[in-house]
Amino acid sequence: MAKLSIIKIGGNILDHAESLSRFLKHFAKVDGLKILVHGGGKLATQLAERMGIEAKMVAGRRITDDEMLRIVTMVYAGLANKNIVAALQSFNCDAIGLSGADANMIQAVKRPVKEIDYGFAGDIMPHSVNTERLSSFLNMGLTPVFSAITHDAAGQLLNTNADTIASALATALSPIYETDLVYCFERKGVLQDVTDQTSVIAHINHVNYTQLKENGIIADGMIPKLDNAFDAINKGVKRVLIKHADDILLEDSGTSIR
Amino acid sequence: MAKLSIIKIGGNILDHAESLSRFLKHFAKVDGLKILVHGGGKLATQLAERMGIEAKMVAGRRITDDEMLRIVTMVYAGLANKNIVAALQSFNCDAIGLSGADANMIQAVKRPVKEIDYGFAGDIMPHSVNTERLSSFLNMGLTPVFSAITHDAAGQLLNTNADTIASALATALSPIYETDLVYCFERKGVLQDVTDQTSVIAHINHVNYTQLKENGIIADGMIPKLDNAFDAINKGVKRVLIKHADDILLEDSGTSIR
Repeated sequence: MAKLSIIKIGGNILDHAESLSRFLKHFAKVDGLKILVHGGGKLATQLAERMGIEAKMVAGRRITDDEMLRIVTMVYAGLANKNIVAALQSFNCDAIGLSGADANMIQAVKRPVKEIDYGFAGDIMPHSVNTERLSSFLNMGLTPVFSAITHDAAGQLLNTNADTIASALATALSPIYETDLVYCFERKGVLQDVTDQTSVIAHINHVNYTQLKENGIIADGMIPKLDNAFDAINKGVKRVLIKHADDILLEDSGTSIR
Repeated sequence: MAKLSIIKIGGNILDHAESLSRFLKHFAKVDGLKILVHGGGKLATQLAERMGIEAKMVAGRRITDDEMLRIVTMVYAGLANKNIVAALQSFNCDAIGLSGADANMIQAVKRPVKEIDYGFAGDIMPHSVNTERLSSFLNMGLTPVFSAITHDAAGQLLNTNADTIASALATALSPIYETDLVYCFERKGVLQDVTDQTSVIAHINHVNYTQLKENGIIADGMIPKLDNAFDAINKGVKRVLIKHADDILLEDSGTSIR
């Protein structure tokens, strides 16, 4: 089995031109087959503000009304995606930018309205990742770069969480490739003490995860990330790594989840 | 030789949701291999206005400063491109959105500053169309959808005229495919009398082109379009057609240039 790395970069990296450029230079050097996944960081909120549109958030999630869908489509699939692709091309990485609509790569369904109407938020359909097409692209030497936009196959674009896209891709491609799923952000890994970048927890498994949650060491935004990670592991992904964007080429860095 | 249609839609079609949807429904049914090329119509100017940025035009061309490049990248490669791709997918056309940066499809060079500084306007480099990659995509059953954004291979995105992209693609692919280049817009073709949609000039060749220009029947914006068309013919493109977007499936419609 060929090795495949699916690497997701966090918004904090995207928001800083220098961090992003440094990361992309390193990413271009990652050995083997690879896929990059990104959202749009604060750019979408900034553009919305400049246009006089207020970003609506409920329970940490953006409410994607019609205007906000236009904005995230512009920022994620346009501005962020094409600048990343152009930078990777300059580093001799043959990148191709994709949304879920392109080549019907990822289908989603508009999130059903229960207590909250999330608007045009898309939940990925099971078994909808176009693994055949993706494999062809990877085997041609292309590096897919996914923005966090999907479609419903009926002409509607949908805003989809980038972490979820990364884990759905990893899960779908695990039967074909020995797949690592890597979440890159601005910290050295999952930290024992958030104020101390040297306190990286090197390994997390089901047993110590429960303890770390009970002790409050793992909390807030890290919980859905790790739940996602364990879900991916349960579905066949070989390893999930959480590490600093600058450490992408360092094999023994960050937190490893198995 | 397999048949290939390279179809460019004008801004007026893009600006009207119903015209665009009708066109895309027809486009999805075009037989044989095909490529779609589009700009962004008035959407870019509208977004700029909403953001309080003034669109700068000199001699009919947009001056692409840093802010305007961000806007056209968002609108052309993001909003317009992804909505077109999603619509085509819903019509069972396996579309994939591309800029010149994606898979290094089209390289351009920043237009040299002479009397006018066009900013981040890109002129397509000779022989830079990635015909090998494009053929692979076409042979896989994909329909490339190009926005009018290219790159310089050094990390810089560039704003490139969509008509020129269409003719560069047609020229580059002519040795491999029997290529038709089709410009679709809101008129029935090149008209003898602009106010009369039934006055279509069915055929234009070098001889009557000179006369039509001398008589002032072909003037203004139509001249660069036709110069482009003859240039493509001289470089091996089989036919150039200028027709109404609604007539894309009608074989004997519009103006044919040979």
